[in-house]
Amino acid sequence: MHRVAIIGGGFGGLFAARMLRRAAVEVTLVDRTNYHLFQPLLYQVATGILSEGQIAPPIRNVLRRQKNVTVEMAEVAGFDLANRRLSAKRSDGSGLQIPYDSLIVAAGAGQSYFGHDEYSVWAPGMKTIDDALELRGRILGAFEMAELEQDPDLQREWLTFVVVGGGPTGVEIAGQIAELSRRVLPRDFRRIEPGTARVLLFDGGSEILAGFGDRLAGKGARELERLGVEIRTGSLVADIDRTGVEVKGPGGDVERVAARTKVWAAGVQASPLARMLAEATGAECDRAGRVAVEPDCSLPGHPEVFAVGDMMSMGGLPGVAEVAMQQGIHASRTIKRRLDGKEPQPFRYRDLGSMAMVSRFRAVVSFKGLRLSGILGWLMWLLVHLAFLTGTWNRVTTIFGWTVSFIGRGRSQRTITLQQAMGRTAIEQIGGREELRRKVSEGERDRSS
Amino acid sequence: MHRVAIIGGGFGGLFAARMLRRAAVEVTLVDRTNYHLFQPLLYQVATGILSEGQIAPPIRNVLRRQKNVTVEMAEVAGFDLANRRLSAKRSDGSGLQIPYDSLIVAAGAGQSYFGHDEYSVWAPGMKTIDDALELRGRILGAFEMAELEQDPDLQREWLTFVVVGGGPTGVEIAGQIAELSRRVLPRDFRRIEPGTARVLLFDGGSEILAGFGDRLAGKGARELERLGVEIRTGSLVADIDRTGVEVKGPGGDVERVAARTKVWAAGVQASPLARMLAEATGAECDRAGRVAVEPDCSLPGHPEVFAVGDMMSMGGLPGVAEVAMQQGIHASRTIKRRLDGKEPQPFRYRDLGSMAMVSRFRAVVSFKGLRLSGILGWLMWLLVHLAFLTGTWNRVTTIFGWTVSFIGRGRSQRTITLQQAMGRTAIEQIGGREELRRKVSEGERDRSS
Repeated sequence: MHRVAIIGGGFGGLFAARMLRRAAVEVTLVDRTNYHLFQPLLYQVATGILSEGQIAPPIRNVLRRQKNVTVEMAEVAGFDLANRRLSAKRSDGSGLQIPYDSLIVAAGAGQSYFGHDEYSVWAPGMKTIDDALELRGRILGAFEMAELEQDPDLQREWLTFVVVGGGPTGVEIAGQIAELSRRVLPRDFRRIEPGTARVLLFDGGSEILAGFGDRLAGKGARELERLGVEIRTGSLVADIDRTGVEVKGPGGDVERVAARTKVWAAGVQASPLARMLAEATGAECDRAGRVAVEPDCSLPGHPEVFAVGDMMSMGGLPGVAEVAMQQGIHASRTIKRRLDGKEPQPFRYRDLGSMAMVSRFRAVVSFKGLRLSGILGWLMWLLVHLAFLTGTWNRVTTIFGWTVSFIGRGRSQRTITLQQAMGRTAIEQIGGREELRRKVSEGERDRSS
Repeated sequence: MHRVAIIGGGFGGLFAARMLRRAAVEVTLVDRTNYHLFQPLLYQVATGILSEGQIAPPIRNVLRRQKNVTVEMAEVAGFDLANRRLSAKRSDGSGLQIPYDSLIVAAGAGQSYFGHDEYSVWAPGMKTIDDALELRGRILGAFEMAELEQDPDLQREWLTFVVVGGGPTGVEIAGQIAELSRRVLPRDFRRIEPGTARVLLFDGGSEILAGFGDRLAGKGARELERLGVEIRTGSLVADIDRTGVEVKGPGGDVERVAARTKVWAAGVQASPLARMLAEATGAECDRAGRVAVEPDCSLPGHPEVFAVGDMMSMGGLPGVAEVAMQQGIHASRTIKRRLDGKEPQPFRYRDLGSMAMVSRFRAVVSFKGLRLSGILGWLMWLLVHLAFLTGTWNRVTTIFGWTVSFIGRGRSQRTITLQQAMGRTAIEQIGGREELRRKVSEGERDRSS
């Protein structure tokens, strides 16, 4: 039986696997986590609207009825393209070999700090469930700290939130931090007025929501400002540290903004697997680490290997879920065509547009010629997001979460873990435990020697 | 205005605060986390039935309408009983002083490993949200590892689960691991049969559910065995390490059980604040670190200081939520009586019995003379738990979660975080980040010097 290995259970990998459901192939889908992440809603986990389970169901559960798929939780470490074999690492560190006949690599992208990885300490990105939970602890924790603070300057620092990057993700998280502070939290605090929190959105370009066209971008910006978000375009981040951000404005002047909580939604960096593929095949790799693919998404000299989604580059396609899905489907179709003795066809992208929820009941939607905003845009946003969420129950409970948050004034997921609450870095938190672990393993060595 | 400080937002602290809602007092409630934890349902977070938000709503949200309460997220570090002042630490490490006229200490209890803290590395307890999320990652991750494992012995190790302690918590988590493996997971895996997982429940006593009386305990045990849980009474844990447990059986023989996943539900240790109170007032402290209180829950020589719930000892009262609630209410009543110039009255416990859910549709309930089991017991369990859950929306969404899990075969919260998935201890996970953090703070020092 023809063996297809798929790396990554995101939109690209999942849609590739599903397209093979009736094919006479054996599929192995490898992912380093157990979940299919609905990345476009991560900001709702970070702001307490949804739980992680609602946007990250187990891949093996999503694919449970597709009997030709085996799901493996392991991290791919390298390729042996000549012998058609992957090497991977399981969570206990032990190795694993996965042979294949066709390979679809859909490993996505992480955050890029444009050469300033030290920013990541103070400004987490928005790419994984871990990121979203970390941000949730920081955002909600900032209000807790402000409530305890006596010094008005420090209180202001805790009540200032900076979002870097004015694409859909940046706009959505800025909008939700603003709604959290203005609609949800005011009743709960005694000393501070959460509604006075500042939310600043910095973008290097001349406008936010650049891909949406001037009119829609303008509407989005106005709605965001109505919520109280301060938009600073033409502003480049020059430094980020514990207590604030330094920003170079359009005039070249550098301003310091004191803010304890920072969110990074600015750049992406393809999975390191993209560069490995480029090196192994001689394909180009761009500045964002994306590997250039052939017109059918395969790699030069390796028609059996495909790279799809955020980790590949092809004629200026945007880094959106829709590209990953369509390419995943295309790669699987190409494999099926080959098995049927047919020629592969080039990938053609059907642009279904883009959308961003600015606030409750307001979204901007650019769909073919259609441009929607306001409540109509929001309803479209709602329908599309529900359609792409996986699982009936997740859909039902997500509607619940939205009802609580958008019609009501609640946020059902406001738990800060003990680790986050104590402001302990994980390293301090488990220091004691690590000490024990070391003692225990020394004890085990002694016994066996 | 008379100032009441309450330490802890669990059942004791929360009910104490509520009892003061119409009193002419200023209440400060201090907790190291932001949530009121519904501890009796922690095992459902650990087994993917509920999200953390559903059982751990923010204390300040629960008390939002009670205007005489201020909630502060800080960890109490010490008492100055002479000057009626608490010292606490905020999450950024800075100090905080809280003066009071009356003090209610309701800091609860953590897990006790009976002098073997090294077990905690391999067998987390069930006391905090962090514990439950850690266990969720381990329990679900064990099936992932088994699916990848080729060696049948190692596969068996991954598919063996040990629960230590046969009280309600141990019974409930053992039952839910069994239902997870038999009802939920089988469809999702290809190589292993999750239903063959072994779940062992060890208890040192002669029967599990000891407090429920022979008949009910026997019914609980039979139901658990019907689910496939192996109950080993008269068994004392002699050692726990990475790959298993050593158990001393009733005959004195030591057996080794190979099991990767262990849960500790055996002993409790009162909050360290109990010992501090004992030392400051000369009160007794028992082996579990609980401070002995006067008949009105106050401390000797300090009628203005109360200790309630799991951290105090009083004539053999059990460590259950009901005691904490009633004592919290009693302490607040005593404060009100004093303000009205009345004499304090001794605390009298109204025993409302105890209950444990053994499996879906089956619970054992001991309520006054009444002893229920089976579906009737389960309905009673359901009603009581819904009644004590906080918040209408939490109740509604919890019914949803139960419907999915008990009528359906789903578990809506199966996400394993990246940190857990990669089997990285937090220390490795953020190693890179810590390195950066160090560099960054060195840089900051250089600049300022």
